[in-house]
Amino acid sequence: MELPSKLLENAVNEMSQLPGIGKRTALRLVLHLLKQPAEQTEILSSALTAMRNEIQFCKECHTISDDEICGICSNASRDKSIICVVEDVRDVMALENTGMFKGVYHVLGGKISPIEGIGPSQLKITSLVEKVKKGNVAEIIFALSSTMEGDTTNFYIYKQIKDFEIKTSTIARGIAVGDELEYADEVTLGRSLLNRIPFENSIKPY
Amino acid sequence: MELPSKLLENAVNEMSQLPGIGKRTALRLVLHLLKQPAEQTEILSSALTAMRNEIQFCKECHTISDDEICGICSNASRDKSIICVVEDVRDVMALENTGMFKGVYHVLGGKISPIEGIGPSQLKITSLVEKVKKGNVAEIIFALSSTMEGDTTNFYIYKQIKDFEIKTSTIARGIAVGDELEYADEVTLGRSLLNRIPFENSIKPY
Ligand SMILES: [Zn+2]
Ligand SMILES: [Zn+2]
Repeated sequence: MELPSKLLENAVNEMSQLPGIGKRTALRLVLHLLKQPAEQTEILSSALTAMRNEIQFCKECHTISDDEICGICSNASRDKSIICVVEDVRDVMALENTGMFKGVYHVLGGKISPIEGIGPSQLKITSLVEKVKKGNVAEIIFALSSTMEGDTTNFYIYKQIKDFEIKTSTIARGIAVGDELEYADEVTLGRSLLNRIPFENSIKPY
Repeated sequence: MELPSKLLENAVNEMSQLPGIGKRTALRLVLHLLKQPAEQTEILSSALTAMRNEIQFCKECHTISDDEICGICSNASRDKSIICVVEDVRDVMALENTGMFKGVYHVLGGKISPIEGIGPSQLKITSLVEKVKKGNVAEIIFALSSTMEGDTTNFYIYKQIKDFEIKTSTIARGIAVGDELEYADEVTLGRSLLNRIPFENSIKPY
């Protein structure tokens, strides 16, 4: 696709770096911005850079937060001895929507994925194991998506904490295998928390 | 969708102002940016604002251009007496790709659309009529998409130029009615230029 302007080309190229946005879609989005007042582009750009540069992650659970400690971790009524391990903030949002979980979260920031070049060191695994070692954890609930990557990540963590005196569980797989957590309806997701099973019972042989 | 951070919320809200981008998609895109180095967001934002603030439109045909006069209008070998009327730069790109058009373009910047609140005054129609009045135009080729809006726009312009001694034509409708020009393959599009018909023969009764 040859564009008649370097400025347009740069904008389209950068826009099409985003996942799922091809060059043609990028051009459509960029031409839309050209038809809107210049302030809209200014506002979009500032919102993105402010977000990227100023966003914080909770020092305890690593979820996105505007404060040092997120609203969930700083809520005295939440049970800090029950930790639900999730991939990212979307999963926290989905589980919070069920209104059924009174523990806290631990956001890994991804799943182990050799294909995408994501190893354990890029995820917040060490700080989770540290929490267990400190001895105040009663239960770890694995709530990663039930994909190959999710299972690999669960198992990698499980190996490091299985010798401690804690319960480990996974949310019940009422959700179809391979489905992403965030698209599950609230009832199914809430039930899968209530029906969680000991992690040992859930290990699949690969 | 309740987000745990104002910064995240702003970014998602602004991103979802773009056409075809819902809140969920916006969140996915924004979380992707968070996983990339901060420079990527910086580069994207600068590319968008530079494009929006610095882009120029050709003083003759109104297409996007980095120069005052675009490469087509400033090309001495193009026949300025044959003007192809199109909606936007994507149509110019599509027609140029056929390699079959040796005239010049006139980019309206949209189509008359009462539903979207776009009237003739928001389009570059007056300057087209002026070109005709100046007397150096031999033919106007209408190449807007064959939709209700495209036909309305064609007819609105046609009424203002029909009393001048010029040929008017529309590109042959080898393209399915209702299809967007930019998605047509090059062969079909090239042929539709060669087979253009007098505009009078193309007027549909609405
Ligand atoms: Zn937290
Ligand atoms: Zn031009």
